[in-house]
Amino acid sequence: MYNETQLQQFVEQAKPYAKYGKVADYIPALRKADPNDLSIAIYAPDGTVVCAGDTQEKATLQSISKIIALAFVLMNRGEEEVFKKVGMEPTGDPFNSIAKLEEKQPPKPLNPMINAGALAVTHMIDGADVDERFHRLLTFVHRLTGDSAITYSKEVAQSEFETAFLNRSLCYFLKQHGIIDEDVEPLMDLYTKQCAIEMNCIDLARIGLVFAMDGFDPIQNDPIMPPHIARICKTFMVTCGMYNASGEFAIKIGIPAKSGVSGGILAAVPGRFGIGIFGPSLDEKGNSITGMKLLELLSKTYSLSIF
Amino acid sequence: MYNETQLQQFVEQAKPYAKYGKVADYIPALRKADPNDLSIAIYAPDGTVVCAGDTQEKATLQSISKIIALAFVLMNRGEEEVFKKVGMEPTGDPFNSIAKLEEKQPPKPLNPMINAGALAVTHMIDGADVDERFHRLLTFVHRLTGDSAITYSKEVAQSEFETAFLNRSLCYFLKQHGIIDEDVEPLMDLYTKQCAIEMNCIDLARIGLVFAMDGFDPIQNDPIMPPHIARICKTFMVTCGMYNASGEFAIKIGIPAKSGVSGGILAAVPGRFGIGIFGPSLDEKGNSITGMKLLELLSKTYSLSIF
Amino acid sequence: MYNETQLQQFVEQAKPYAKYGKVADYIPALRKADPNDLSIAIYAPDGTVVCAGDTQEKATLQSISKIIALAFVLMNRGEEEVFKKVGMEPTGDPFNSIAKLEEKQPPKPLNPMINAGALAVTHMIDGADVDERFHRLLTFVHRLTGDSAITYSKEVAQSEFETAFLNRSLCYFLKQHGIIDEDVEPLMDLYTKQCAIEMNCIDLARIGLVFAMDGFDPIQNDPIMPPHIARICKTFMVTCGMYNASGEFAIKIGIPAKSGVSGGILAAVPGRFGIGIFGPSLDEKGNSITGMKLLELLSKTYSLSIF
Amino acid sequence: MYNETQLQQFVEQAKPYAKYGKVADYIPALRKADPNDLSIAIYAPDGTVVCAGDTQEKATLQSISKIIALAFVLMNRGEEEVFKKVGMEPTGDPFNSIAKLEEKQPPKPLNPMINAGALAVTHMIDGADVDERFHRLLTFVHRLTGDSAITYSKEVAQSEFETAFLNRSLCYFLKQHGIIDEDVEPLMDLYTKQCAIEMNCIDLARIGLVFAMDGFDPIQNDPIMPPHIARICKTFMVTCGMYNASGEFAIKIGIPAKSGVSGGILAAVPGRFGIGIFGPSLDEKGNSITGMKLLELLSKTYSLSIF
Repeated sequence: MYNETQLQQFVEQAKPYAKYGKVADYIPALRKADPNDLSIAIYAPDGTVVCAGDTQEKATLQSISKIIALAFVLMNRGEEEVFKKVGMEPTGDPFNSIAKLEEKQPPKPLNPMINAGALAVTHMIDGADVDERFHRLLTFVHRLTGDSAITYSKEVAQSEFETAFLNRSLCYFLKQHGIIDEDVEPLMDLYTKQCAIEMNCIDLARIGLVFAMDGFDPIQNDPIMPPHIARICKTFMVTCGMYNASGEFAIKIGIPAKSGVSGGILAAVPGRFGIGIFGPSLDEKGNSITGMKLLELLSKTYSLSIF
Repeated sequence: MYNETQLQQFVEQAKPYAKYGKVADYIPALRKADPNDLSIAIYAPDGTVVCAGDTQEKATLQSISKIIALAFVLMNRGEEEVFKKVGMEPTGDPFNSIAKLEEKQPPKPLNPMINAGALAVTHMIDGADVDERFHRLLTFVHRLTGDSAITYSKEVAQSEFETAFLNRSLCYFLKQHGIIDEDVEPLMDLYTKQCAIEMNCIDLARIGLVFAMDGFDPIQNDPIMPPHIARICKTFMVTCGMYNASGEFAIKIGIPAKSGVSGGILAAVPGRFGIGIFGPSLDEKGNSITGMKLLELLSKTYSLSIF
Repeated sequence: MYNETQLQQFVEQAKPYAKYGKVADYIPALRKADPNDLSIAIYAPDGTVVCAGDTQEKATLQSISKIIALAFVLMNRGEEEVFKKVGMEPTGDPFNSIAKLEEKQPPKPLNPMINAGALAVTHMIDGADVDERFHRLLTFVHRLTGDSAITYSKEVAQSEFETAFLNRSLCYFLKQHGIIDEDVEPLMDLYTKQCAIEMNCIDLARIGLVFAMDGFDPIQNDPIMPPHIARICKTFMVTCGMYNASGEFAIKIGIPAKSGVSGGILAAVPGRFGIGIFGPSLDEKGNSITGMKLLELLSKTYSLSIF
Repeated sequence: MYNETQLQQFVEQAKPYAKYGKVADYIPALRKADPNDLSIAIYAPDGTVVCAGDTQEKATLQSISKIIALAFVLMNRGEEEVFKKVGMEPTGDPFNSIAKLEEKQPPKPLNPMINAGALAVTHMIDGADVDERFHRLLTFVHRLTGDSAITYSKEVAQSEFETAFLNRSLCYFLKQHGIIDEDVEPLMDLYTKQCAIEMNCIDLARIGLVFAMDGFDPIQNDPIMPPHIARICKTFMVTCGMYNASGEFAIKIGIPAKSGVSGGILAAVPGRFGIGIFGPSLDEKGNSITGMKLLELLSKTYSLSIF
């Protein structure tokens, strides 16, 4: 269907859009990214990987980690327990909004893709201490990618840890209302490490493939997660994976996807393949502007929309 | 796959849930509905219709009409013009909320499924006067259902027209901000007639079938709407078709659907069939409680989720 | 204490601030005002009136009428009934905000100085029809000013009536929730006439004097309103008389006052005198920018703050 | 005018209202208070003190400390600097609300009496460390009361420090937006100590007297604070001293006052006397229910309203 030449052409078509966005600046360590970088990998069930751009470039997951942590926690704790602490509804608010927590009774985060909800999810990662909890999550990432060398960027984690005042504000609000009952600093430590897990777009595409195949890894023949959990995750990708541009993305592109402010996008075309993209120039809602363009070209050309 | 016996069993399983809800009471004429009614029809592309319950029972469309009016207006005005007046993002607020209109700059309704957005859509139905505009919409409904006898309930339309103060409040707010530039009373007349269009669950299922088949009516071999418009509509059904329970519905059931406070649900299983349901007992968010149960049974039994 | 020369000097000092504001533009008929106009009158209990500027210039009351209607309705209906429909709390929101009505349960307007509350107050003016109700209110204004020639500007009333979409939105919201139970159009007719009552700054100062003297008119020796009602009105002037700049005004100037978007300010220095000002150049919150400056000069020079 | 017998009668009249409220329960150490306690002191400029109830009963200041810290910071930093970080407008929201911080641009707390604003004020207390900063504030309290034995309750401070998650949430939100630029934990330490300063109602009345006399302490002949700062504080007491019941309190009672969830009320009758009350049974907005009743009786009997 698609080949490297075609993909390379799409990358060239998407790259000029980088100038309409800018790299994330609220996390100091992310400011160094080159807005013109753009890499993509498409991972098929038969193991074929088609790439374009500098696929060895690594970037941190940031909000993409929310969907991985959600899958992990759903596997460990079960739906019932998880959805006691976090809702299932999309929201028209920015990802870091706190206002709606105050409005709703009880103040349960509306969904696990906004920061408040993601913090509640990370809170549910079990383990004796931050190290063990992070190790368990990282091991899950190793299994998803088949790459046990993946780790996190200490610099980015540290940078976020030092400046994540708004996330601390959300945590204390959740703690006030009993959604979170651990100390905030260890949770912030765990959360910023989770966000700082670093990989290239091929790894990302492979995680997308696992979601695309309903939780089954066809490369290692490994049923990593139960199909219903993979499906829950894909649903959240559609309804709230692209921040408060998710509705427009669903209409225009229609592929389950999750983005992060590092410029990464993890996408899963159900039954077909996984896609990983890194393009650090962001639009004002926090999504990779070149990454979205690339996905639009792919979706329109190959009819990838699930709708 | 499914047959009448099976469907009848599902209806029997769903019916007892009626007691956990109640019929809509904010529109006087809807209060007469029997909460224990429950009918369903499944319409396949080959013309087969499988039914259960009293399928001759008619009910008004209410909010289901929003998705039909949207398709019609998209066909007439084009995406660009329509999405200037109404957004694409789901919202965690109730369907009749006005607060977010005030927060957002400009005050564009977040999506066409909340009342504010639906009023902006109906505003865009062209015609010399209310009669002509309504006639054009009704003709579209006739084409979608293949049944030119369908009309609206004068009693329900009148009842809503007399009591729709909140919708008038939304209209004047939109008028203040230039989203609507016609007089409010004729628009309310048109909107309440649109909501009062009356049909049985078989008609509803047939409309669902057209959406399921990407806008093509396989019964009359009629390309009623362009595929991309059918897809836009299905996307809105997923992200905001079930009021502020859409996220949960997408996760648990995963079928594009639109509900109304009459207890109706229009559902479209892409590429497979359309579903029409009437069950007037509503949960607190305004969705048919027995209808949702029925869809859950169908979705789980026959793996109908798009995710 | 103060004399015309001093007052004239203050006017000259305040006038240059007109350039930092602009005349109200949301009501077409108000756009014609000259932003450089500025007139003031101070009315003492012994009948002395000290003036500066063109005191024959008339302007409409706009929101100043809210405090007069409140006094009138409190006299007619009593505190208990009035405060069932409208609250007593200041709000940090703009005067025309609707969001908080939705948040609060029940949706009672927070105070009678925001538009929603003022509409609820005007709704409580008794009479067989709009003409009789308006006549009763106007007669009260005649008594307050001792000038039975005062009437309303048909042009301004008409202009507001035609464009008051946001006020209609508020009315229908209140009607939905039972705060208002009359038809909206007659209420809008009455309200826009009330806002369009026209007088000069000397009349305005005399009304201020009546409030300053706890409801007693020392000129005609007429106990126009009971002291506790005059005091309630002065309290609202302090806590919410200057839109969402009331807090700052209380701190910096400390005189009970009510402003309108025509550029008028009615002020009452308890036990001492009434002040009327017209200066149509408004700041972004809707208060006369030169009028506020004048009051600041007066308050600081003569220690008029009640605090 | 008033005497001990009269005051004792008022206390007897007010006491039965205790049963309609309850003691603060969100700070564990406050739960021990006896809801039926009620003490009052009135402090006149000539040094006369009239009391009723058990005036040796001590209680913590809680939110009453906000007005003292405000006066102190205004004296140290000046109006201009203080009002860069905190606004002057009352708000209809509860004292611990965070939603409006998010709505407003920039996210400056609306006034220094809500928690967000009070935290910004305490942040501005200068000193090398928490100990020095607290010592400076406590010394100011000693000067205001003439009692250098006053200190804080370690138990209450500790209890609040351990449970003040919502205040930490507010602090981090303010820190994110640059309103606060110190570490949150030391600020919480300082703030919870400030709230835990403990005194009896006679001390409280004496502080009220200083505000009543425009910042001058007639007992020690000491000009403690400049008149304009005392006046600013009294204005805030009127517009936002009684949480989101301030508007109603101003109308019904009309005395500048500040309450705390310990059940304390500090009141200042301008030019006449100070009042201190402790009555721990609170209404749902956090004001002493018996204290408000007492003030209502006093205000009505002796015409103490400033309006």
